[in-house]
Parts: sequence; structure tokens; C-alpha cells
Amino acid sequence: MSKQKVFSLPVRVYFQDTDAGGVVYHASYVNFMERARTEWLRTHGYSNAGLMKEFGVIFVVRTLKLDYFKPALLDDLLNVTAQIKDIGRSRLALLQSVLRGDELLTEGEIHLVCVSLEGFKPVSVPEVLRKQWKV
Amino acid sequence: MSKQKVFSLPVRVYFQDTDAGGVVYHASYVNFMERARTEWLRTHGYSNAGLMKEFGVIFVVRTLKLDYFKPALLDDLLNVTAQIKDIGRSRLALLQSVLRGDELLTEGEIHLVCVSLEGFKPVSVPEVLRKQWKV
Amino acid sequence: MSKQKVFSLPVRVYFQDTDAGGVVYHASYVNFMERARTEWLRTHGYSNAGLMKEFGVIFVVRTLKLDYFKPALLDDLLNVTAQIKDIGRSRLALLQSVLRGDELLTEGEIHLVCVSLEGFKPVSVPEVLRKQWKV
Amino acid sequence: MSKQKVFSLPVRVYFQDTDAGGVVYHASYVNFMERARTEWLRTHGYSNAGLMKEFGVIFVVRTLKLDYFKPALLDDLLNVTAQIKDIGRSRLALLQSVLRGDELLTEGEIHLVCVSLEGFKPVSVPEVLRKQWKV
Repeated sequence: MSKQKVFSLPVRVYFQDTDAGGVVYHASYVNFMERARTEWLRTHGYSNAGLMKEFGVIFVVRTLKLDYFKPALLDDLLNVTAQIKDIGRSRLALLQSVLRGDELLTEGEIHLVCVSLEGFKPVSVPEVLRKQWKV
Repeated sequence: MSKQKVFSLPVRVYFQDTDAGGVVYHASYVNFMERARTEWLRTHGYSNAGLMKEFGVIFVVRTLKLDYFKPALLDDLLNVTAQIKDIGRSRLALLQSVLRGDELLTEGEIHLVCVSLEGFKPVSVPEVLRKQWKV
Repeated sequence: MSKQKVFSLPVRVYFQDTDAGGVVYHASYVNFMERARTEWLRTHGYSNAGLMKEFGVIFVVRTLKLDYFKPALLDDLLNVTAQIKDIGRSRLALLQSVLRGDELLTEGEIHLVCVSLEGFKPVSVPEVLRKQWKV
Repeated sequence: MSKQKVFSLPVRVYFQDTDAGGVVYHASYVNFMERARTEWLRTHGYSNAGLMKEFGVIFVVRTLKLDYFKPALLDDLLNVTAQIKDIGRSRLALLQSVLRGDELLTEGEIHLVCVSLEGFKPVSVPEVLRKQWKV
């Protein structure tokens, strides 16, 4: 049973995130989710630059699955969440969502792989993170 | 049985598409695929602006599923494909891929919905396109 | 003599903002500055969506001038400022900068024009904003 | 007197380049110009990756100056130009413009500096390029 908390990052929508359809561009949600994952990682003590320097590793996206329910609009203040679904030796599955108040706008499942900076080969998730992430 | 051809768009990788990991940023492939879908649509006689003007409709992304196999690199010349998988009354499923020569780098399945410009409600795909897209 | 305060917005650097050169991509600073201008506008009581709805106007960029002194890096926490330099009937000149602590990384001067949503013709800056912005 | 030719790259406008104002987002022109500069460089025999590998150098943006005259729209087919204005030991000044047919939409002057990949210190522009670029 998971005791992992849901992390949430407030994200404001600017013109740069929207398109001529008058709503947020579909790839912008992918960006919002990267921001939330990075801040979630930081709550566990590590930045991306820190992971590279200390362990010579980096998390790369292996699969991305997004469901778009309702569009976000210019000037919206969104909440973008991140939560562990599953963890393997070198793999990490996250559930992420984009909310406007109680409304669920977008839902995502992102699978990451921990790879070596040299050669991009899968390596074990650093133990200091695995310990915190055991679901 | 499908007689739909695979459409392919050459896409060059610039600094703007890459990130500090030294490879193409994962959301950039989503952009590449939008470019290929749009040019594929154009081969069927319509631009996005044209669809809005003539029919008052727009295709929005409903689901996005991407598998990342190998990273693309700065200055790569990629081919980004688009091909119909399935078509419903207002829905359209496309298979897309990003290739470097024979290497498959990324594969995607994108479900689009044809919606009215006013209200973003699902409406029928314009007949002139349905006729061409019957799988 | 100006009594306008310098507004400052904290901005974190993510992979999405960087490029394969290992630093922040030069166009990302333009995005950071849009975010800061928008939040600065909000401190004067208006969102972009609000300006469109209440006055039928929008601020568009007329000129952009950026000086890049030092690169920002992945995971940096930056401060992005906005401050009025000058205001005309329909024009607004802003000074903006990107700082990392005390280090000045990028400096910008951005000239905006207030235009009508229909036709993009220059119109007067709404009085409620002019009153606050008189330098 | 310059015998430098004006290089021109066709660029199509997609949703990803536009914003909720219904036009191309102002930072997208900066991206368009990077694409044209890179292809212009390629006509002189070098890619960015090639410059890094062969000479250990990279061109970074030192100043950016853009004038926006008219907005580009969704589905427009633009021409983005690049042309040398001036060259110094480690500096390169380019004139760039964005055109729709005969209409000048945006004009830019971009100053680049050739820097070492290690340390980002200004170094001489490789001789093989200087010879071609003498104005």
C-alpha cells in the first residue's frame, strides 16, 4: 500500500503556452509535467544537475501517455501533480495530472529510465532515491 | 484493408529542439509530429486555417502515446511519418513515427477529435475528408 | 524621476529551457520575460485575458532588444524583473533583466503596443493602467 | 562592398508557433531565425555539431534585436533570411528577416560570438569560415 504523497506544483498559463486555437497547446502540458516532476525530485533532495554531478546519471522519458479531457486557458492557475506509481531497478513510473481547481484537465503516465550520462545505458536508480520511493 | 499511404516529412534538428542532456527534448517530438500531421492534412487538400474557415472545425488531441527508443541528436535530419490507423464519426487515430534513416527513434499513436470552433464540442469529420480517409 | 518599483519573478530553469550547448537556449529568456511582464501586469490589477474581455485590447511586442552577458544553467533559480521605462499613448517601454543572485545574466528592452483585438490597430492604453504607469 | 548573398529558408507556421492572440508568438520568430542561421551555416560547409567536433567551438548569441512589423498567421509559408552584416575576430553580425511573399513581417540583427566549448571564452572564428565570410 502506498504511502507516497501526491506532489503538486502551481503553474500559471502564459501566451507562450497557448496556440491559435485559443487554448493551451497540447505539447505545453508535457512541459508543465516536466516542471512538476523536477520539483517533486527536489523534494527528495536532488536536482537534475545534482544527479548528473553526484551519480553521473539522468532520468530520460521512455514512454509518455496523456489523456486530454478539457482545455486549459490563458491566465489559468493550474496545479500539476506528480506521484509514484511503480519503481523498478532502473525504471520509474509516475502518474501526473493537470488540474484547475477540482477539474481534471489532463492525466498522464510517464515512464522514466535512469541512464548513465555516458552512453545513455540503463543503470540502477541511486539507492538514496530508491529508499524514499519504495511504494 | 488499408490503402492509406504513409506520409513522411523531413525535419532537421536545431538547438531549439535539444536540451542540456545533449539530445532532443522529449516534448520536441510532439511538435515534430504536429508538423507532420499538418502537412499530411495538406496533402488531403486542407490547412488548419482552411478547416476553421470552411467548416468551423478544428482537430484537437484527445490522447497521445509516445514510445522513445533512441534519442535524436543536434543536426540530425529526421523523417516524421503520419498514417491513419482508424477513423470514427468525429475521431481520428493516427500512427506516427520519427526515423533517422532506417532507425526508429520514436513511435506515437495520436487520437484526434474533430470539434466545433465554438464550444469545442465533437462534430462529424467533414465528409470531403472522411471519403479520403476511409481505411 | 521614476517612482516605479522593479517587479521581480522567480523562475526555475528546467530541461525544457536548455539546449545541447548545456545552457539556457537564447529564446527561452524571451519566454521568461513574458512571464515576468504578465505577473507585473497582474500586480496592476489586470490579466491578459481580462484586458481582452474588459477593453478588447492586447499588448503586442513591437521591438525586442536583448543583451546576453552570461548563460543561465539547468536548475538555476533566476529572478526576472520588469520595470517601466517610458509610456506613450499606445506604447509602453519596459526594462527587463534576468538575474542569478547578484549576477546580471541578460538585459532586455521591450516595446509593446496596445492594439485592438479586432484588426490589431494601435489604441490608447486603458486609462486605469495609464494612471498607474505614469513615470 | 558586399558580395554576400542573402540566404533564405522556407518556414511553415504550425499551431506550435502561434498563441492565443491568434498570431505567431513573438519568441517563435527567434526560433525561425535560428533555423535559418543554421541552414545558412550549412551552405558554408558546417553544422553546429561539426563545429563542436572539429574546432571545439560554438556560436552563441550576444545580442538580439528584433522589429515586429506585421504578424504571421497559422499556415503561412514564410521565408526567413540570413545575411552577414559584419565580421570581427570572434564576432559575427547577421541581418535576418521574416517575409511572407513581398511583405516584411519581422527584421532582426543578431550578434554572435564564437566561443570555446570549454569555458565559453571568445575564440577566433575558424579560418575556413572567415575566408568565406569576409564582407
